[in-house]
Amino acid sequence: MYEGALQNVIDELGRLPGIGPKSAQRIGFWLLDQPTEDIGRLADALVVLKQKVHFCAVCFNVAEGDVCRICADPRRDRRAICVVEESKDIAAIERTNEFRGLYHVLGGAISPIDGKGPSQLRLHELMTRLADGTVTEVILATNPNLEGEATATYIARLLNDFPGIAVSRLASGLPVGGDLEYADEVTLGRAFSGRRTI
Amino acid sequence: MYEGALQNVIDELGRLPGIGPKSAQRIGFWLLDQPTEDIGRLADALVVLKQKVHFCAVCFNVAEGDVCRICADPRRDRRAICVVEESKDIAAIERTNEFRGLYHVLGGAISPIDGKGPSQLRLHELMTRLADGTVTEVILATNPNLEGEATATYIARLLNDFPGIAVSRLASGLPVGGDLEYADEVTLGRAFSGRRTI
Repeated sequence: MYEGALQNVIDELGRLPGIGPKSAQRIGFWLLDQPTEDIGRLADALVVLKQKVHFCAVCFNVAEGDVCRICADPRRDRRAICVVEESKDIAAIERTNEFRGLYHVLGGAISPIDGKGPSQLRLHELMTRLADGTVTEVILATNPNLEGEATATYIARLLNDFPGIAVSRLASGLPVGGDLEYADEVTLGRAFSGRRTI
Repeated sequence: MYEGALQNVIDELGRLPGIGPKSAQRIGFWLLDQPTEDIGRLADALVVLKQKVHFCAVCFNVAEGDVCRICADPRRDRRAICVVEESKDIAAIERTNEFRGLYHVLGGAISPIDGKGPSQLRLHELMTRLADGTVTEVILATNPNLEGEATATYIARLLNDFPGIAVSRLASGLPVGGDLEYADEVTLGRAFSGRRTI
């Protein structure tokens, strides 16, 4: 539609997830109005990304060194491991300031539809981490959906081999600030069955 | 939140229009899974953008040479000029295949709220193009909103000095595929006053 360089940028932007052709065009024209240095900064950040970012050798979180910031932090409680599906889940949990232990990134969840079985997850690595007996608590923080629940159940069963480890799952219930009227039946049902005495 | 390079990319992406922090994070992680060449292509496209893209010396459309593809095309009808606010409006009109003349990009519309007056638009350049008498038709295709209408009215008045030029404005009315019930009063009113005998 446009000439070479502009159309190139629009095409490349349009390949990014969540950016359609209209957004790509809008960003393309917006970039044309920006100072060359600003565009250069974005381009540089992209080039450096794959060079610098690796996965933590311990927990498989994104990391720039061998080990991620959390695993390298001596103040973190090494007795607790929170198991998550993806690195971005760690960021969400860190924002709550509720957990001071370490993490373990599975790299997804068990999902037969996507052809993803337990062997594709980093379960063997998790078992290796638990072998030396330091860890006394594992929190299964997979997503509260079908795949996440199945994965949590699967891992919980594996952890039966470690009687010294307390295994828990994140609570399900009504989201804070939500409205009872608009809660779906499953969530409301969970909120009931998980009710706490006050 | 994340370590250096990844957070850098997320920050830079988050500056783009229409991309919030969540989308930026999603794209950042998605990029991590892409081959280095693909990211390189995006980075290169961005770097080349400002080097290559200029504005057409005739109509101020985006162009890679001195003159844009449309102005350089000998098959275009040089007697008609369609006046638009932005380069992207040209792409929209070209998709209709209804117009085979040339364009003129104003670079916006008259908008006192944004401190934009007629002197900031490329009106002088438009008058210069009309001076030699080749052009016999000018279509005012500014946006159908307050600023666009004001701009069209302003230009129409300027064009009174060229009695040999037919000046027209794009038709207002109901969008095709739309629903009468949901049309706003102004649009429906325009559709009535602009009704055509069949």
